[in-house]
Amino acid sequence: MKFGGTSVGDIARIKNVARRVKAEVDRGNQVAVAVSAMSGVTNQLVAYCNEMAPIHDQREYDAVVATGEQVTSGLLAIGLQELGLQARSWAGWQIPIMTDDAHGKARIVDIKGDEIISLMEKGHVAVVAGFQGIAPGNRVSTLGRGGSDTTAVALAAALKADRCDIYTDVDGVYTTDPRIVPAARKLDKVSYEEMLEMASLGAKVLQTRSVEMAMKHHVRVQVLSSFSDAPGTLICDEDEIVEQALVSGIAYSRDEAKITLIGVEDMPGIAAGIFGPLAEANINVDMIVQNTARDNTTDVTFTTPRADLERALKVVKDNMKVPYKSISTDKSVVKISVVGVGMRSHAGVAQIMFKALADRKINIHVISTSEIKVSVLISEEYTELALRALHTSYGLDAA
Amino acid sequence: MKFGGTSVGDIARIKNVARRVKAEVDRGNQVAVAVSAMSGVTNQLVAYCNEMAPIHDQREYDAVVATGEQVTSGLLAIGLQELGLQARSWAGWQIPIMTDDAHGKARIVDIKGDEIISLMEKGHVAVVAGFQGIAPGNRVSTLGRGGSDTTAVALAAALKADRCDIYTDVDGVYTTDPRIVPAARKLDKVSYEEMLEMASLGAKVLQTRSVEMAMKHHVRVQVLSSFSDAPGTLICDEDEIVEQALVSGIAYSRDEAKITLIGVEDMPGIAAGIFGPLAEANINVDMIVQNTARDNTTDVTFTTPRADLERALKVVKDNMKVPYKSISTDKSVVKISVVGVGMRSHAGVAQIMFKALADRKINIHVISTSEIKVSVLISEEYTELALRALHTSYGLDAA
Repeated sequence: MKFGGTSVGDIARIKNVARRVKAEVDRGNQVAVAVSAMSGVTNQLVAYCNEMAPIHDQREYDAVVATGEQVTSGLLAIGLQELGLQARSWAGWQIPIMTDDAHGKARIVDIKGDEIISLMEKGHVAVVAGFQGIAPGNRVSTLGRGGSDTTAVALAAALKADRCDIYTDVDGVYTTDPRIVPAARKLDKVSYEEMLEMASLGAKVLQTRSVEMAMKHHVRVQVLSSFSDAPGTLICDEDEIVEQALVSGIAYSRDEAKITLIGVEDMPGIAAGIFGPLAEANINVDMIVQNTARDNTTDVTFTTPRADLERALKVVKDNMKVPYKSISTDKSVVKISVVGVGMRSHAGVAQIMFKALADRKINIHVISTSEIKVSVLISEEYTELALRALHTSYGLDAA
Repeated sequence: MKFGGTSVGDIARIKNVARRVKAEVDRGNQVAVAVSAMSGVTNQLVAYCNEMAPIHDQREYDAVVATGEQVTSGLLAIGLQELGLQARSWAGWQIPIMTDDAHGKARIVDIKGDEIISLMEKGHVAVVAGFQGIAPGNRVSTLGRGGSDTTAVALAAALKADRCDIYTDVDGVYTTDPRIVPAARKLDKVSYEEMLEMASLGAKVLQTRSVEMAMKHHVRVQVLSSFSDAPGTLICDEDEIVEQALVSGIAYSRDEAKITLIGVEDMPGIAAGIFGPLAEANINVDMIVQNTARDNTTDVTFTTPRADLERALKVVKDNMKVPYKSISTDKSVVKISVVGVGMRSHAGVAQIMFKALADRKINIHVISTSEIKVSVLISEEYTELALRALHTSYGLDAA
C-alpha cells in the first residue's frame, strides 16, 4: 500500500490511513506500506534549500528533503500500534534501499528485503519512508518528484507482493479527464504500455518511472482513492485484460509549443543539422514532421515543451548550417493522443480520429504515431471539443 | 561549535551561523559544528507523536523527532559551501554516534570520529545533527531535551577538541539571574562542579548531562551568544581558575513544594518508612530536615518538585507504617542556593547567607548543604529581595 502526500496531509488523515491498513491486515494480508511526506512539507524543505543557495549540493538537498517521509513513516507506525498492530518504520538507509549516486533523481539499484520479509511473516506491518534510499558513500539519496510511487513498486517487486495499491486523491485511471468530459469512465484495468503512454502524455496519476518498473517486474499496481472505498484501476500485463478495447484512453497535454522552419533547402542531413544542436542544448523535441520537398525546399515542423520555446528558437537561429526562408512559432497548441494496445491488431484507428476532428472542422497541425498511440497537434481552443468528440467516437462514453 | 534552536531559527539565522563558522575557519581552526532543530520544529514533531497516540513507541518517536536536526545540518552544510568552504552534514547514524537503547533519553556510548577527523584534516567542516545517535538494532535514538549540548561535548571529546563553544541566546553564565538582579555579572570562568550545581538548581544554560560529560572528559566548554561578539563564560577545571571567588553564583528554583509531617512518633526507621514508598513511586525528594525529638515525637519536612506534590501527598497518606499527628504543605516556596568551590576551604560561608536573610527578616524553612553549595527554602514572595541581598553580601555586585 502506498499513500501520497494528500492522503497523509494531517494527523487525522494519517489515522485514517492506519485504519485502512488495519482493514487490509484484517482481511488476512501481509502488508508493507510506503508513505510520502505530509502535503506541503517537501515544498517547504525544497524552498529552504533554495533560500540557503539557489545552486546547492544535491547530497545535502537529499539529506534535508528525505526527512519529510521519515516523519510520516514514524507517525504511521505509531498510529498502527495504537490500533493494536505490530508495526515499525524504516528509513531508506535502514532497509537498505540502495540507489545510484545521481542525487536528487537517483535510481533504485537493489532492495534488501530480508529483514522486512522476516518481520512481515511474524505479522508485523512494515512502514517504509518513500522517495529515498542510500547512495554509495553512505549518503541519503532521493528519487525525484513522485518517487514514492517508485519506492512502492520497487518494494512490491522485492517482497514479491501480490499487488501494489497506490492510494491517491483520484479514484483510478479514467478514459480521459473527467473535468472536461463528464462522460469519462474509470477503467477497471489498463495495461502497463497504455499507462506509460498516458503518464508520459500528461495524465499525472503515477510517476512514469514507477510504471516502467512495474512493467519490468510484472508488479500488479492498483490506483485507488484513500478517501473512498470504491475499487480503483488495475495496471497489469496485457494478458490479464480479457476484453481489450480498441482505445483505452485519451490524453492531452497543453505543455507544447510548435516551431516551423519554412523553405528549408532540401538536401541530405537537414534533420541531423536541425535536431543535433537542439539535443546538445538538452531540449526535448517531441513530434517532428517533414513533408516531401516541392521546388527543392521543404517545411520542417516540430514541438518542444512550452517552457523551452525561447531557448529552442535561439538554438535554431544561431545554427547557420541549415538555410531556411523564415520561421514561425505557435504556443497555443495542444497535443491530443488516443492510446490503446488494441490498435496493434486493428487498422483504421487513426482514421476514426481524423474523421471525428474533420467533422468538427478542427485542423490538424502535426500527426505522430507509435505502436499503441496516435497523437495530433491542434489549436488549444479546440481542446474540450476534440476530447469530447473523440471520447464519443471511440465508444468510450459511460452508458 | 554548537548552535541551539533560536540560533538556527530561520534561514537568515542559519546563514549567520555559517558566517560565524567561516570566521572560525579563517582564524586557522579545524571546526566541527553540532546543530539543533530550527526553533519550534521539535515541539511540532513531538506534538504530532502525541496526537497520533498519547503513549507511543519511543523508537518511532525518535525516528520522527530526530529529523529536525537533520534538516538544519543539511541546510548549514549548504550555507557553508555557499561561502566557499568544504562541508558536509552527518546524521547521528552516519558518524555513527552510538547510544544505548533508552530511546527518548539515550546515552552516548561511543563516537567513531575517524572519518570526520580525516575530512577535517583535509580542511572540511563537519556539520553534525545534534540530539541523536543510533541505538542497537540500527534504530535512530535521541538524547532527550537539550541533548544537542551533549552531542557537542561528546563530539569535542571524541575529536580531542581544544574547546567546545556553545552558542545560545544568552551570552554566558551569570552570577545570578540578571532579570532579577541588575547588578549580576557575567562570569569569565566557572568550574565544572559549580556549573553542575547551578544547572541542576535551575540555571538553564546547559543540559546537566553535557556538563557531567565535559567534566569527565575535561572538555573546555565556552557558553556564548550567537547574536553578539562578546566573549562568553568558560566552563573548565578548577585548576584553570586562578582567582577563585568564595561564591561563584546564586541560583534559585521555584519548582519546589514543601511537605511537613507533624508529630511523627520517634522510633528507628521512620526516615526509611517515609521515603521508601516515595522512592518506589519515583518521586524525587530533594531537601530533608528532621529535628531532635521532643516529647517522643518529631517533625519531618521535605521538598518535592511542585508538579509531584499531589502524588507525594497520596503516597504519604496511604502509607500507614509511620504514624503522625497532622500534615501540612506549602507550594509558595523557593529554593535559593549559593554555589562556589571556594567554600571548601573557607568556613563561615553559610553564616553570611543566614545573616543576610535574617537582616531582611526572611524566615528560613529548611537548610541543606553540600560541599560547594548551601541551599535554603524560603517563602516565594522574598525571592527577589533575597537574591539581591545575597548577591551584595557575597561581594558579587558589578562595580
